[in-house]
Amino acid sequence: VGIITLTTDFGTQDWFVGAMKGVILDLAPQTQVIDITHEIPPGNIAAGAFALASAFNYFPRGTVHVAVVDPGVGSDRPALAVKSERFTFVGPDNGLLSWAMPQPHVKAVYSLDNPKYFLHRVSGTFHGRDVFAPIAAHLVRGVPLAKLGTRMDDFIRLPWPEPKRTGAGISGSVVYIDRFGNGITSIPGEMLRGGSEAWDVCLRGRRVCSVARYYQAVPAGHPVAVVGSTGYLEMAICGGNAAQRLRLNCGTKVQVRSCRRDDVPL
Amino acid sequence: VGIITLTTDFGTQDWFVGAMKGVILDLAPQTQVIDITHEIPPGNIAAGAFALASAFNYFPRGTVHVAVVDPGVGSDRPALAVKSERFTFVGPDNGLLSWAMPQPHVKAVYSLDNPKYFLHRVSGTFHGRDVFAPIAAHLVRGVPLAKLGTRMDDFIRLPWPEPKRTGAGISGSVVYIDRFGNGITSIPGEMLRGGSEAWDVCLRGRRVCSVARYYQAVPAGHPVAVVGSTGYLEMAICGGNAAQRLRLNCGTKVQVRSCRRDDVPL
Amino acid sequence: VGIITLTTDFGTQDWFVGAMKGVILDLAPQTQVIDITHEIPPGNIAAGAFALASAFNYFPRGTVHVAVVDPGVGSDRPALAVKSERFTFVGPDNGLLSWAMPQPHVKAVYSLDNPKYFLHRVSGTFHGRDVFAPIAAHLVRGVPLAKLGTRMDDFIRLPWPEPKRTGAGISGSVVYIDRFGNGITSIPGEMLRGGSEAWDVCLRGRRVCSVARYYQAVPAGHPVAVVGSTGYLEMAICGGNAAQRLRLNCGTKVQVRSCRRDDVPL
Repeated sequence: VGIITLTTDFGTQDWFVGAMKGVILDLAPQTQVIDITHEIPPGNIAAGAFALASAFNYFPRGTVHVAVVDPGVGSDRPALAVKSERFTFVGPDNGLLSWAMPQPHVKAVYSLDNPKYFLHRVSGTFHGRDVFAPIAAHLVRGVPLAKLGTRMDDFIRLPWPEPKRTGAGISGSVVYIDRFGNGITSIPGEMLRGGSEAWDVCLRGRRVCSVARYYQAVPAGHPVAVVGSTGYLEMAICGGNAAQRLRLNCGTKVQVRSCRRDDVPL
Repeated sequence: VGIITLTTDFGTQDWFVGAMKGVILDLAPQTQVIDITHEIPPGNIAAGAFALASAFNYFPRGTVHVAVVDPGVGSDRPALAVKSERFTFVGPDNGLLSWAMPQPHVKAVYSLDNPKYFLHRVSGTFHGRDVFAPIAAHLVRGVPLAKLGTRMDDFIRLPWPEPKRTGAGISGSVVYIDRFGNGITSIPGEMLRGGSEAWDVCLRGRRVCSVARYYQAVPAGHPVAVVGSTGYLEMAICGGNAAQRLRLNCGTKVQVRSCRRDDVPL
Repeated sequence: VGIITLTTDFGTQDWFVGAMKGVILDLAPQTQVIDITHEIPPGNIAAGAFALASAFNYFPRGTVHVAVVDPGVGSDRPALAVKSERFTFVGPDNGLLSWAMPQPHVKAVYSLDNPKYFLHRVSGTFHGRDVFAPIAAHLVRGVPLAKLGTRMDDFIRLPWPEPKRTGAGISGSVVYIDRFGNGITSIPGEMLRGGSEAWDVCLRGRRVCSVARYYQAVPAGHPVAVVGSTGYLEMAICGGNAAQRLRLNCGTKVQVRSCRRDDVPL
């Protein structure tokens, strides 16, 4: 009785996710299939990579994480399985798995090239159902990776916008917009926890707010930055939509600078 | 193998609900985690309270119901567990649990103040994952409430717009708009079942329709009121959206008056 | 420990689906309840029929498939159970089950007319919770169909727009628009696999694209037709929304004609 998670851009409007679950349960009854999300914007590999990286680690050891945001479905991009100490990840080789699985955590990478473990008929458009779902089911039943495919050296990685220390502070960028319109940045909270400092946040060269401990530290409608639940600094509007109000997109630059006030705890 | 339900405003676009389920399954494998809804409008405590109150009672004895609509997350509002004879409810102390748990049904109330049962690191913004999910998992595994927190006398209650009998009939108000645009009122069906009467429904002093037994009792596009599946009178447009067409909001007053026709069964 | 799937137009905004699952788990604990979709457009029986027909067959033998798109709820349309060799289907008698269960696959049809197996109080508006959920739970627990209802001869069928061979090729029509805006037609891929032919696709008398093997066989923004994951020909825009761009609706006629190029494999 294992656990398989699903992270896709298939939406929940049609039967796509249901069909994947049918395939899994047919091969591995009693598996718990847990949705991480199916509302990754269609084809947005970076958004899928960030969602997977934010959720996978809360699951029990042995969980198989399936991610399918796969604009190249049907072309010849490999299907991957990536093993870490605690988990196995399954998905297309397009960068989707790379933020969850940075190089040092990877124990092994396999190209899933053994059609014996796919559905009998593989469509050109729905490898989630025909390739990734059955592979995940076989993994949860204990089929060894070496039977499912061929060992590879590495896989495609998305670039991560590493934050940089600058003279006045730290420079990063927005990497994900969540459903509340909060803009999550690439600046980890740890970079802000140095001593008794306070921090201002700037967009396009203008100060927009300070870093606070929680959203409601400012009045409704005001901008605020907090170290969010992912551990990264995020831009928000208390009770509002920061992406719209502050015109945030993935890639928008964010500067944080110490304002050296005394005795203002983070 | 217990059951935990989730009622939140987290949406399904991001990984938030997936992460909560990971935390639960890590602590209590084999738990069935059932979504009631994650699409409560952000911060709308009354909508969450109504949804929870409409669904909880259909679950088996022993179910742990988790509800998180928590605009005050990170401030010092207590986290609650409320016990009834059949269920345990977990959520913030902001009224969210109060319509499901009217005073006479409450057996015990606890403030969840023992961080030993939270995730190791509690964020300032996501107590759903860091506090409520692990608490629910511990409950389903049988940890007694007395270990998780401190007994309290009572908790915050949302006012309920009690319907009133007036000379001409009954006066109530809309308490929930559902996805079809139906406006559910605070008038229970039982108040209408007196004898061989027929009922007219008025909005803003004008009659808009009669009470019927089902939506299609009127032609498509016509307004109708029915005693809906919650047991309360609801305003609908057959095949249409009553909230838009009749300009219904939560709080809109609804009057019902007997029209004393003979032999018109409800 | 059986499996029940749900296909409805109830949406996920309210508690409707949660309440159905509560009813099922109360009667049949440990059932796996799997969502196919709850976002069938309200009252769109054909869309529900197509979604169910596209997903049901991937589930294990013994699965109970519940479908509820039921604009006539509360009127006197019968509630059905339909048995095939591998599955039992439960839903209203309005055509919803008919594309999954063509006549030759049907082993038995029952009218669910024994209120002993409904919830104690049946509302006029929510038979998903009050009739279909408890019936499905009883079926998964092994209650024989003959106890739940009365044998019928047949049930209501939706017309299926059979594709026709014409002089120049094949004529069919759009039967489903998916969330990506792809227009799935009634033309099965098998009709196109005759010899070494290539195929042009026409809408409203004008050629719009060729049939290719996968979406990205054409540049982004260009129309393309592929035999999709349902096995039917579908119209797409690579990286775009074909329903909007090509003005596709359910019922839009699609013509395919051989262009007799040599050596162009499908």
